[in-house]
Amino acid sequence: MLCRVTITERQRSCFAAHPDRSPLLVVDLDVVRQRYEDLVAALPGVTVFYAVKANPLPELVSMLVELGSSFDVASIGEIEQCLAVGAPPERLSFGNTVKKADAVRRAAELGVTRYAFDSECELEKLVAHAPGSLAFCRILCDGFGAAWPLSRKFGCAPDVARELLLEAARHGLRPGVSFHVGSQQFDPAAWDRALATVADLRAELLAEDVELELVNLGGGLPGTYLEAIRPVDEYGSDIVAALRRRLGPDLPPEMLVEPGRYLVADAGALRCEVVTVARKSTTDEHRWVYLDVGMFSGLAEVMDEAIRYRVLTDGADRPTGPVVLAGPTCDSADILYETVDYQLPLDLRAGERLYLQSVGAYSTTYSTIGFNGFPPLDVEVLG
Amino acid sequence: MLCRVTITERQRSCFAAHPDRSPLLVVDLDVVRQRYEDLVAALPGVTVFYAVKANPLPELVSMLVELGSSFDVASIGEIEQCLAVGAPPERLSFGNTVKKADAVRRAAELGVTRYAFDSECELEKLVAHAPGSLAFCRILCDGFGAAWPLSRKFGCAPDVARELLLEAARHGLRPGVSFHVGSQQFDPAAWDRALATVADLRAELLAEDVELELVNLGGGLPGTYLEAIRPVDEYGSDIVAALRRRLGPDLPPEMLVEPGRYLVADAGALRCEVVTVARKSTTDEHRWVYLDVGMFSGLAEVMDEAIRYRVLTDGADRPTGPVVLAGPTCDSADILYETVDYQLPLDLRAGERLYLQSVGAYSTTYSTIGFNGFPPLDVEVLG
Repeated sequence: MLCRVTITERQRSCFAAHPDRSPLLVVDLDVVRQRYEDLVAALPGVTVFYAVKANPLPELVSMLVELGSSFDVASIGEIEQCLAVGAPPERLSFGNTVKKADAVRRAAELGVTRYAFDSECELEKLVAHAPGSLAFCRILCDGFGAAWPLSRKFGCAPDVARELLLEAARHGLRPGVSFHVGSQQFDPAAWDRALATVADLRAELLAEDVELELVNLGGGLPGTYLEAIRPVDEYGSDIVAALRRRLGPDLPPEMLVEPGRYLVADAGALRCEVVTVARKSTTDEHRWVYLDVGMFSGLAEVMDEAIRYRVLTDGADRPTGPVVLAGPTCDSADILYETVDYQLPLDLRAGERLYLQSVGAYSTTYSTIGFNGFPPLDVEVLG
Repeated sequence: MLCRVTITERQRSCFAAHPDRSPLLVVDLDVVRQRYEDLVAALPGVTVFYAVKANPLPELVSMLVELGSSFDVASIGEIEQCLAVGAPPERLSFGNTVKKADAVRRAAELGVTRYAFDSECELEKLVAHAPGSLAFCRILCDGFGAAWPLSRKFGCAPDVARELLLEAARHGLRPGVSFHVGSQQFDPAAWDRALATVADLRAELLAEDVELELVNLGGGLPGTYLEAIRPVDEYGSDIVAALRRRLGPDLPPEMLVEPGRYLVADAGALRCEVVTVARKSTTDEHRWVYLDVGMFSGLAEVMDEAIRYRVLTDGADRPTGPVVLAGPTCDSADILYETVDYQLPLDLRAGERLYLQSVGAYSTTYSTIGFNGFPPLDVEVLG
């Protein structure tokens, strides 16, 4: 079953009202609201912590505060952004395993009580500066089935996690565990595999009289790009079944999920302009299509062509041919899609506008401050 | 012969004067001045156009204006930055082959007379909006010998270039040609190979009574990273010899070079802090060392581990072991070096400061506006 969104009526009106702004990202908060409500319904008993890094627009965070969401934050900067729009500190989770001691101290002062860690070094900071807090250890996950499998950067082996959690408990911290099945995860069964490891770890801790107080299911719920994805209720029922199978009947007191992309990707539509259409040689049928937006002005996720935005043109039934899509900077790495097969109208010309869909996640703040003299991505928010 | 720079005395004093700022990039303009003078001496008859995108700090551009440099600019934004610090428009070259028609019109109004192009689409804009200007066509180059070989994004095949330049001449534009041997080019002979192609093209144009008025030798001169590089006078003598061999004795009226990295990389020293040192498993001898600076706060050039910064620690003769170096964000792609073998002291601890050398190029403006809530790279300039 395909899950498709198009540009909303409100987004179309907004583009029409600003004909000269290009590139322009329009974020429709109605879409975020709907996604949030769908997810809450799909995951009973699991608290939603929005991963603020996906899109920290104040209007968006503020709306989620009102809807009752909690928040996964990556830095003191994000904690302050959330508090500034009214998020209570008890609804925050400091999910970055890489934190300066000062950042832990400051977060604890501000009232944050949940912290990720995956090493002795980080545990020492929590013991020293966030006593009594919920300390959840991130374990490594395989990432099979994800468009963007995560690296080994975060998480540790389960046997390392066991020792760290026992030590955390000895120091009066409340132990939890987290994992991440990989960003843009196409397979709802990925959570089941990770939860099997969590169940083993839970049993080993219980043998030492240590109870797991929190299980963090991480992110990974997909946005809508070129590939077909399954609707969120299928993810929900698979995840709920996996929780019961692996951790039931006595579920841990707190279970949370950290969606970023899923909540905000489909809320963003980007209008951009074709700057140049070029042929590199007389024999290659590919045209190079250069846009006024690229890897350094908001589309960093095209790196390795992992995230494949859907591209719309005006006018139906125009004959198409293969293209390479590239950004406007003088940087040779600023190419959107060279190996993925994109097709655009054969009569495409400089000056024409294109629409990229589902650009609401990991775009605005990925913009550089001004590489090549181009400004950061221009954004309108529809509240 | 190895070309090594260390952190300058002025940079050390500056770091000492700002003990609490981390990460902090300190750019010493004395180094840029020296590099500029060395290059001018090494390339007699060739005009230096500094590639502003490498580092557009106003103090830096202003100093180069005073030294007599010309400038390669990528956008209207960069043109305005140069004019704002006193660069005369006749010393600018609009080197981006991707330009909106409006940008060409505006640049021509501002007095810019040199333009890159590589397609019919761009040529039409120059004919329409920059009549009589110097239009140089970029040809594709192999990139052998470069740490960062350029993609096919810029340039066209020589036979396409010939047709485009003949058409440019028919429309009253003054024809030129440019190429780029690849960024961080270790082999001074790379220019000779490209100039052989230029010589053929020049002869073919001359057969049609069209004279090449400009040859743009592009960038590619290296900064000082992990690998040994040859001193600039060796590059200079090889390039000058290649120019004579391929284009002599009647050299084209204007020859220019577009150094970016070479002029500014070695001028920047970055002090950062170790946030976390972690072991992922009980069997891997690598430690993961997380810094407070990474791919999204200024070190974008670590992408694919192509640019390998030299890392310094305080204290000599500390026993070392292998590490993976990573940045502070929750993004799994924010890893500096995982496959390149970096060694750091076995007693390295969170809170210790490290120094990355030659970070003056492609760092400041590559910073994101605030991904993960971290601010752009903090910079001090020593004038």
